[in-house]
Order: sequence, then C-alpha cells, then structure tokens
Amino acid sequence: MRLSKPLAPGATVGILGGGQLGRMLALAAARLGVKCHVFAPEEDSPAFQVCAAHTIASYHDFGALEEFARRVDVVTYEFENVPGDTAAFLEQVAVLAPGSAALKTAQDRVDEKTFIAGLGIPVAPFAAVHGEAELEAAIARIGRPSILKTRRFGYDGKGQAKIGERTSAAAAWAEIGKAPAILEGFISFDKEISVIAARGWDGTIAVYDVPENHHENHILRTSTVPADIAGKTADEARAMAGRIIAALDYVGVMGIEMFVAGTGLIVNEIAPRVHNSGHWTQDACVVSQFEQHIRAICGWPLGSPERHSNVVMHNILGAESANWAEYGASPNTGVHYYGKAESRRGRKMGHINVLTPRQG
Amino acid sequence: MRLSKPLAPGATVGILGGGQLGRMLALAAARLGVKCHVFAPEEDSPAFQVCAAHTIASYHDFGALEEFARRVDVVTYEFENVPGDTAAFLEQVAVLAPGSAALKTAQDRVDEKTFIAGLGIPVAPFAAVHGEAELEAAIARIGRPSILKTRRFGYDGKGQAKIGERTSAAAAWAEIGKAPAILEGFISFDKEISVIAARGWDGTIAVYDVPENHHENHILRTSTVPADIAGKTADEARAMAGRIIAALDYVGVMGIEMFVAGTGLIVNEIAPRVHNSGHWTQDACVVSQFEQHIRAICGWPLGSPERHSNVVMHNILGAESANWAEYGASPNTGVHYYGKAESRRGRKMGHINVLTPRQG
Repeated sequence: MRLSKPLAPGATVGILGGGQLGRMLALAAARLGVKCHVFAPEEDSPAFQVCAAHTIASYHDFGALEEFARRVDVVTYEFENVPGDTAAFLEQVAVLAPGSAALKTAQDRVDEKTFIAGLGIPVAPFAAVHGEAELEAAIARIGRPSILKTRRFGYDGKGQAKIGERTSAAAAWAEIGKAPAILEGFISFDKEISVIAARGWDGTIAVYDVPENHHENHILRTSTVPADIAGKTADEARAMAGRIIAALDYVGVMGIEMFVAGTGLIVNEIAPRVHNSGHWTQDACVVSQFEQHIRAICGWPLGSPERHSNVVMHNILGAESANWAEYGASPNTGVHYYGKAESRRGRKMGHINVLTPRQG
Repeated sequence: MRLSKPLAPGATVGILGGGQLGRMLALAAARLGVKCHVFAPEEDSPAFQVCAAHTIASYHDFGALEEFARRVDVVTYEFENVPGDTAAFLEQVAVLAPGSAALKTAQDRVDEKTFIAGLGIPVAPFAAVHGEAELEAAIARIGRPSILKTRRFGYDGKGQAKIGERTSAAAAWAEIGKAPAILEGFISFDKEISVIAARGWDGTIAVYDVPENHHENHILRTSTVPADIAGKTADEARAMAGRIIAALDYVGVMGIEMFVAGTGLIVNEIAPRVHNSGHWTQDACVVSQFEQHIRAICGWPLGSPERHSNVVMHNILGAESANWAEYGASPNTGVHYYGKAESRRGRKMGHINVLTPRQG
C-alpha cells in the first residue's frame, strides 16, 4: 500500500525494532507531534522508554503484527534484517516504508551488488558462492586477498572470512557456516565515506553532506563532516546515492557506504534505514536523518539537509559509557545515550557529536 | 534532600506536569539516556507519549506522590503552580529541584518582587492588596495606569485587571475575583526581553543569550535572538539573572522576564522552570534549555549555552496548527508539535525555530 495522504501531527508511526535507531526515530517523530508504536521482541528495548505504545512479540507473530498494523498509520523499521515474510505481510495490511522490494534487495549482498552494478555504478568484483567448489572457482577468478561474506544477516563484520594468500576455500567456507555467500574482491581504498539520502513518496530527494568514516574491528568509530575529499568526489557520491534511491523507488532514509579508491568511487553496501554514519545530523543540521526519515514516510516535505556546523561523531562503545561526565563537560558537544542497561564489549552505548564552526 | 551524587545515564527523573514543557524535558532527558516518569492528573497528557512511565493522579494524592518519589532519583516540575504542600512533601521523601523555597518565592507576586527588589534589582512599583480599601490607597500611591494581578496562579494574562483613568477600585477588585492581589505600576518600556539561566548543585551558572519577546493578547508570539539591544544591556540582563538564581540557591533552569525601559532594566517576573522564551535553544544551541535543566538537576556538568545560529521562535497557536506542511517546507526551520489532540483558540500547539547564520 502507498500512503493515501500526508500524515498530520497526531498520526502514529509503527516502528519494527526497539534498539537505538528505533529510539532516535521515536524521539524525532515526537518533535513533529507524531506518536510512535514500537514493535520488538525484547522486553527491555531502549525505544520503549520514549514511545506512546509498544508491542512485545516475535517478528513471526502475524496476529500481533496485524493488530500492530491496525493501530498505526505507516510502518517502518530500524534494521535491514526484517524477515521477508514479515515485510510482505505488513505491506498487505499496512503502508510499509521503505517497501519490501527495496528491503529484499538490500538484504542480499548478491542482489544488492547486481542491482547497483546494473545502474552502471562501480562495485567490488563479486561472485555468488553456494559451495566449496564454487568458492574455489570464484577465488581463482577474483583473486586474493578477497572477502567471503554471508549473503544475508551480516553486520559489524559478523559472517565474514578474509581470504588471504594461504586461506583454503574449505576453511573459509566452514568459517562462515557454509551459508549462501558472496566472494568480494579486496578493494584498496584511500577513504571510507557514506551518503545519507532521503526520498519522499513524491520522488523528492534530499542528500546530506558526505561524512568520512573510520572503523575499528569492523565497528564505526568516527564520522567526520565534511569528508576530506575533493568537492567533485563528494558531489559524485551524492549523485550516485540519488540514483540508487530513485531506482529502488525508495521512501525513507538510506545509508550508502562507499570507498574512495584510486579508480574512483566504489559502492560497498546500502542500508535501507537510518545509519550510524548519519548520527552527526542530530546536532549539525536542523532536520536530523531521523526526522528526515519520519518526514519522508509520513509524506511531509523533506527538510533541508543543510548543515550549520562542521562535526565529528564518535561512537561510545562498551565500557566507554562510564565516561558520561567527561562527554558532558566537553564544549560544543551533543551527548547521546541509548538507554541500554548493559555495556558489553564493543556494544554501541551512545555517541557524541563535536561541533566546530562551519568553514565552507 | 540534596542530590548525594551525580546521576548517570539510566537514572530516572520524575516530572510533575505532563504538558509541552514536561514533554520536551522528557525528550531532552532521553538524549542523555535518562528515563522519565511523568506525574500528571490528565489522562491524555502530551508528555505521556514520550516517557518510560507515568502516573495519573491528583497533585494532592500523597500516596501516589510517595510511590512516584520512590521510583525516581530526582523530582522536578514543569509549572510554577505546584501546590506548596505537594512540594514540601516531595522535598521530604525525594530530591526536589528546584527546591520548594524558590518555588514559594516565585509563586507569590508580592514575595517575588520583594525578594528581587531586596537584591537591589529594579522592579515595577508595587503594593500588596487584600481588599477594596487597600486597593484605593495603593492606586493613590502608585497611580494610573496600573495593573491589578492576583498574587498567585496567574499566567498568560489570566487573573489581571488594568486600572485605567476611569476604572473603579471596586470593579477591578471584583474582576480578579477578590483574591489576594498585587497592584503594579505601569511600566513604559521599549522592549520585552528574557533571560534563560541555569544553575547546578555545585553553584555553577550558565546563561543563554538574551531573546527579545513579542506578546499578543498576553501570549508569547515570538522570541528573537539576539535581541536588538546594546551588548552592555544584554550583559547586564544576564548578570541580573545570575544574581537572582544564585540568591535563591536555585537548581535547574529559570526564565526571567524583563523590560528594557528608559531608566534601564526592570525585572517583571521569574518562572521557576524552563520557559517558552527559551524554546529557540532547541535548534540554535547544542544543549537546549530542556537538556540544561536535566543536566542541572541530575548533577551533570552544565552544557555550554553558546549559540551557533541566530534564530526567531514563533509559537503555533490554536488553528495555526493546521499549517504543519507549510512549516515543514520552510528552510532552516525546526518544527515542534506538542502532541495535543485539541487545538483550542490561543492554545500553544507547537512552535517553530527559524535559523539564520550567526552574525557576531
């Protein structure tokens, strides 16, 4: 279903997933007077602390999903691993944004890369892999080093095996659990960047400035805006993001990760949701990526993605969450905590946005 | 009780009052990972939509208040008309901030003006009035035009009668319901400004830049920052606010309304809470007045009150709330709706903050 008319303040957005992204979506929706109903299986979901209503149930509980759909005006999600059946069902009984087709493409690394390459946008060399023999052949074609990844359900480096000079196909295949996979050629890149883009029901597109991202152990540590890249490269990245989001007939905010390589830009992956590398928009823009997503799915005019400040976003991981007083005492620093009770190693507990005056 | 140690993310703030100020306090607390429990008598309180827990009960229900106090780490309020008994009780069983002494002073216009004048800060000429004869005498002393106001429970121009050239004391006395009152001399002023100041448990003070306020029918329409006043006047206003907040041993954010008159600054009234004329801080500062209040009462370091942009805040009143699409389409505009179901005439339904680049 498509949205029949824009949703005024007082409407209710349903959010699948109750983690920090769902929480920050709910907080942004509240600014606009839009209520949120969060659906998540975990009893202590952080988003439950800030929403008007919540449902604790499995994503496979279709009775609960139907009841949830009846009580909201549009359904969205904070994570790309929404089961396909769940998305398809919700699309029958409710307005789902982003839609299930875009979700399906983003959920499968082979479909994702095939789709992007089909737009004439560079991606890493890749091959679908269904077994050890096929992996051998793919390594022979794509070369070493390369990376074997499960096609589905990978995040923060999980479900990946590096194929080094001596890695056997058998070992790598076992390491990722013999799940349907993709072999990707290793990209030698100068920088990692990303683009946060939004598209409304009417096809309007708004794209934020480009952050430069630094990862440690496959987890995002910082996003710096503006990225230290040529203006032409940034424009090209934003234009690519616009082409991808339009080709998917996408509604909502999408995060698109890219490499800046010697040969130019290469798209790494797309996330059909608000994105960690867009958290800086909360303090450096009038309309954050979270509000932009709510605006897009509710049929509001998209907000200007303009940025009033330069900014560096730092994730707060694991035990670093104890340093709240230090973050709180830092000047020009927006402090964000996610309301998680336990701080496990490497777990995203919050982030800070450190602003400096905009220069150009 | 005073706060024994700073409250880390995960703590719970109790808020008396579930209107837009309580709602925006809860949203700001959520950024810091602080949970909110809102206590209000009205079932459809806007703040209930964005808090972790709520209690629906009368402010005179001491059983409910005690249970509420047990479940939170600090108690605050969004309105100055908290009954004195309620504040005194909460201060026995919980940490209350701002404390009941400051609240008491702010609740009574005679006490308030006496206190401020005692600091050597100019206020309008005033006299306490308990009856018609006393009003006659007060008018003779203070002159016409002047304004008769109830000592307590007035807001947005309610409980006021103007004493014009021909107004009889009897008529004015009847108009305000023969409640204990104050007669205030009419001030001929150039501008209305206000100061939003915060003070922590450790006595640290942070004061925002000075907005210039325009009222219509006694209701705030716009706050413009910076105010079009001399830098020296703004500095003086901020210094006065600091002296008031310190003298009250105040913890939290306070709004102080002032007139810029030919003779200099005159303090009109103080509000022991976040203030409508401070809503611009949500989009023009990294730390809003709402977050600042939460930081103050939780023992966090106060945030820098610096402003990265110039800004005009416009209140959205009554039927104007239908114009959300127009507000949403305005560039550089932060849109805020309060989640109120009904838009009665003159009712504050939301506000917008229109940013322009900072100049000086």
